[in-house]
Amino acid sequence: MRESFARQQFMATIGAELVRVAPGEVDIRLRPDPRLTQQHGYLHAGVVVAAVDSACGYAALTLLDEAAEVLTVELKVNLLAPATGESLFARGRVVRSGRTLTVCTGEAVAVADGTETVVATLLTTMMAV
Amino acid sequence: MRESFARQQFMATIGAELVRVAPGEVDIRLRPDPRLTQQHGYLHAGVVVAAVDSACGYAALTLLDEAAEVLTVELKVNLLAPATGESLFARGRVVRSGRTLTVCTGEAVAVADGTETVVATLLTTMMAV
Amino acid sequence: MRESFARQQFMATIGAELVRVAPGEVDIRLRPDPRLTQQHGYLHAGVVVAAVDSACGYAALTLLDEAAEVLTVELKVNLLAPATGESLFARGRVVRSGRTLTVCTGEAVAVADGTETVVATLLTTMMAV
Amino acid sequence: MRESFARQQFMATIGAELVRVAPGEVDIRLRPDPRLTQQHGYLHAGVVVAAVDSACGYAALTLLDEAAEVLTVELKVNLLAPATGESLFARGRVVRSGRTLTVCTGEAVAVADGTETVVATLLTTMMAV
Repeated sequence: MRESFARQQFMATIGAELVRVAPGEVDIRLRPDPRLTQQHGYLHAGVVVAAVDSACGYAALTLLDEAAEVLTVELKVNLLAPATGESLFARGRVVRSGRTLTVCTGEAVAVADGTETVVATLLTTMMAV
Repeated sequence: MRESFARQQFMATIGAELVRVAPGEVDIRLRPDPRLTQQHGYLHAGVVVAAVDSACGYAALTLLDEAAEVLTVELKVNLLAPATGESLFARGRVVRSGRTLTVCTGEAVAVADGTETVVATLLTTMMAV
Repeated sequence: MRESFARQQFMATIGAELVRVAPGEVDIRLRPDPRLTQQHGYLHAGVVVAAVDSACGYAALTLLDEAAEVLTVELKVNLLAPATGESLFARGRVVRSGRTLTVCTGEAVAVADGTETVVATLLTTMMAV
Repeated sequence: MRESFARQQFMATIGAELVRVAPGEVDIRLRPDPRLTQQHGYLHAGVVVAAVDSACGYAALTLLDEAAEVLTVELKVNLLAPATGESLFARGRVVRSGRTLTVCTGEAVAVADGTETVVATLLTTMMAV
C-alpha cells in the first residue's frame, strides 16, 4: 500500500502522506499550501476530495487480497466549511466490503490552532479490479 | 470571472485554463502531466473533480449578479473511464439557476489521438454567497 | 422486462406503468394521487425517486443479457421543483454500460396543463447480478 | 412535527411512523408489506429512500425555528443489502445545521429475527424555507 501511495504522484504534488493504516481505516494528512488554494485562499475542493478519495481507496484495499487494486466508481461529497489551518486530515472508513464493491465513508478535518473542524463528509463506492 | 479564475492557484497548479464562457456554460482545459497522476499513470480523480467542479462553479456564476460568488455545497461524480491523453476538457452546464442554489451537471472529456472519451459525469449543487 | 415490472408491487402501489422501452432508454409514467403526497400536497420525493430509479434500472437491463437482473448500487438525485400535475414521466438513460456496472442518468418531468417541468435529475450506478 | 408527519399521506401509504424525536435525531419505523416490494420481494429502494429522507428532513426540522419547513435539495444513497424482515428503521441525523442549509446522514436498518442489518446509508442536503 505504501508503495502504491508513493506511485501516486498527485499525492506528492499536494503534499499528502499516509499517517495511519488499520483494517478498514486509513488516514492521510496534508499541509495546506498556497499552490492548493481557490480564489478565497482556502484549500480547493478538488484537493480535499482527492485526499479523502485516496484515504477511502486505501481503506478499501486493507480488506482485499494483497494483489487487488481499487478504482473509484463514484463519490459524493458535502463541503461543510472552508478548509484552512495548519493540517488537513482525510479519513477513510469502510462501511461495507464486498467481493466486487466496497462502500466507504470519509471525512476531512481541518486543524487550526489546535481546533478540529469537519470540513467535508464523503460517501463513495470503490471497485476491486 | 477570469480574474477570479486567475486567483485560484490550484487551477494554475494543475495547469487548467478557461477556454469557453457562455451563459450557463463554461469549459476548462487542462493538460495531463505526470505530477497529476495516480498510481496507474492516469489523472487522479481529484484533479478531474477539481476541473469539473470549477467549470460548474463558473457556469453557475455566469447567471448570477456580477457581485455574487459561489461555493460548492456538494457534488457527486461517476468516473467512467481512465483519464489520459493530450487534453482533458471539463464542461460545466447549469441545469437550474435559483436565487440561492444553482444545480449544474458537468462532464470531463479526455482527448487522445483526436478521439474524445467521456471519463466522468458530475451532478452538483452550488450556493450563491 | 414487462414481466419483471409487473412483479414490482410497489410500482402498482404508486400507479406506475412502463410507457416506452428502447435500447438504453426506458420511460415510466405515473399519475399523482393523494396517497403519494408529502405534507404540501406534492408527490413525495420517495415516489419520484422510486419511479426514476426503476426507469434507470430497466434502461440498464435493455443492454444486458436476457437472463441478467440489476440492482441499484447507489443513486443521487437533485430535486428541482415540486412534483405536481396530471402526470409524472420518469426517464432513465444509460450513460455507460459495462459488464458489471451500468451508469445511468434519469429525470422526472411533471406535466401540468400541457406544460412540462423537470422536477428531478438523477445519477445512478446499477450492478448486473 | 407530528402534525406535519400526519399530513404526509405517503408516510401512511407505506405504513411509516415516527418512533423517536430528539434534537438533530429522528427515527421512523415501517413494516415491510407486499405492496411495497420490488420484483424479488424486498422493499423497493424508493420506499427505503422515502423513509430515510423523511427521517432526515424531520431531524433537520428539530434544530430550526418552529415556523420553518424543510425541502430536500438533494440526496445520495448507497444500498448495501436487501431490505427485508419484520421492521425497517430509518434514522436521520444532522451533521451540520446552517441557517439556510442542513446536511444530514441517514441509515436504514432492517430487523429480521432480532438481527439488525444496515441496508442503506444516505447523505443529504435540506433547505429551510
